[in-house]
Amino acid sequence: MCAPVVVESVRRELSRRGFLTAVGAAGIAAAAAPGAAQEKPLRLPKGFRDVVDLTHTFSPRLPVFPSFSPVRIRQRFTIPKDGFFANEVTFDEHTGTHMDAPVHFIANGSTVDRIPADRFVAPLAVISIEPRAAKDADTLVTADDIAAWEKRWGRLSAGAFVAMHCGWDARIGAPDRFLNRDAKGTMHIPGFSEEAARFLARQRDIVGVGVDTLSLDAGAAPKFVAHLELLGAGKYGVELLANLARVPPAGATIVIGGPKHEGGSGGPVRAFALV
Amino acid sequence: MCAPVVVESVRRELSRRGFLTAVGAAGIAAAAAPGAAQEKPLRLPKGFRDVVDLTHTFSPRLPVFPSFSPVRIRQRFTIPKDGFFANEVTFDEHTGTHMDAPVHFIANGSTVDRIPADRFVAPLAVISIEPRAAKDADTLVTADDIAAWEKRWGRLSAGAFVAMHCGWDARIGAPDRFLNRDAKGTMHIPGFSEEAARFLARQRDIVGVGVDTLSLDAGAAPKFVAHLELLGAGKYGVELLANLARVPPAGATIVIGGPKHEGGSGGPVRAFALV
Repeated sequence: MCAPVVVESVRRELSRRGFLTAVGAAGIAAAAAPGAAQEKPLRLPKGFRDVVDLTHTFSPRLPVFPSFSPVRIRQRFTIPKDGFFANEVTFDEHTGTHMDAPVHFIANGSTVDRIPADRFVAPLAVISIEPRAAKDADTLVTADDIAAWEKRWGRLSAGAFVAMHCGWDARIGAPDRFLNRDAKGTMHIPGFSEEAARFLARQRDIVGVGVDTLSLDAGAAPKFVAHLELLGAGKYGVELLANLARVPPAGATIVIGGPKHEGGSGGPVRAFALV
Repeated sequence: MCAPVVVESVRRELSRRGFLTAVGAAGIAAAAAPGAAQEKPLRLPKGFRDVVDLTHTFSPRLPVFPSFSPVRIRQRFTIPKDGFFANEVTFDEHTGTHMDAPVHFIANGSTVDRIPADRFVAPLAVISIEPRAAKDADTLVTADDIAAWEKRWGRLSAGAFVAMHCGWDARIGAPDRFLNRDAKGTMHIPGFSEEAARFLARQRDIVGVGVDTLSLDAGAAPKFVAHLELLGAGKYGVELLANLARVPPAGATIVIGGPKHEGGSGGPVRAFALV
């Protein structure tokens, strides 16, 4: 390996030009002295060139899961009348690009305001099943898909966030195509298989799971099996993600501005990928 | 400077041990060849050891600016009855730890959903006036305070977010002390002076400004002068920030999970400092 003094001289050169602000001195010190004690692991986001917005604009025209109502946005104050403009907003927690906290399905599970903040900044793994989903709306993310991702990119790291990309966000402007119901009313939308959800919940130390559809579970899945596995293991979910096609399979960092209202089972998020 | 080959060998060494995942190869390449063309500036968050949550739990007990109502959280679905638990939430946009978009005060100003995503990841400058505010609730962030910060930490960088810390978040559990009204009903709360707001709005290329109070303007300030200067210049505001005492004056990165509802003048955010 390079001598610490070389590393240090490189660090100085880079820092002087302001390029290496990405790595704190502590990071370099740790790198230069691999045996040095470290109180907690450094969790460094990659340097990034772009902020990809993974969030759909929250509007009454978005598709919503049956049972829920579209968001209502009502103007209450106007500049001519009040000197400022402001709305009142009413939403069902599980609409828009939104989070599912464990308590959504698990009695005594964590509410949104109790999830530790550091679980909202995570290495982002994107598993794309888009080509398959284009042909088969009932396709699932399987344990084999996860194994294939790990074979190419390495084991899912502790603290990672795993997103399914099936291309559904391209349907966002057409709620009928998004919900994709058959004559009997059953939705046909991809999701995580029970086996894949169980693997992620029990075999990997991830913080959460996301989808570009409106449910972790496939439209035709029975009994919310993926939700129960994942939320039951204390993971959170994020549904209706946007723009995953603009994010690489590995290497990005997701930051999820999760809701923090008291006792919430979920709620709209603002999610970014630092790419 | 070090030869690119040395930089590259250091990069390989560090990467191999996983410490330098903070810096993408592109960043190192740019550093090694300072004259190389660069399509856009690298905006790299510092390596960080902690995620500080700058967000208060959004509850009906938080202080609210006069005119607005506390958030309402109503249980609509329960696990025993529906198989899942979910609430409906109604809020006035300018309650909780929240954003002010330019349109809040400026006709035709940007709405929350139109602010580019990359303006929500920013170098965080914290200007503390806490010692003064402890003695004088009407104290203001002045242009001199900004000059003193810049003398110590360097010129506010393009794309920075500037937060006033006056210690008001310690009063969050006591709305009367937070609003701090006198017998005539006038609030006594620190804020940005008109001069400081004008300087930040016109002389520095910042993205936004935050406070740990409920207004960019001081409680006793006339006519929303700081709001008009800052929002008029296309900056956004974030109010009711928490935990700024845990963030250094310079060097942290703020990520603001801003609201994205259609046409919003503002709304609850989730804000983190990567420290």
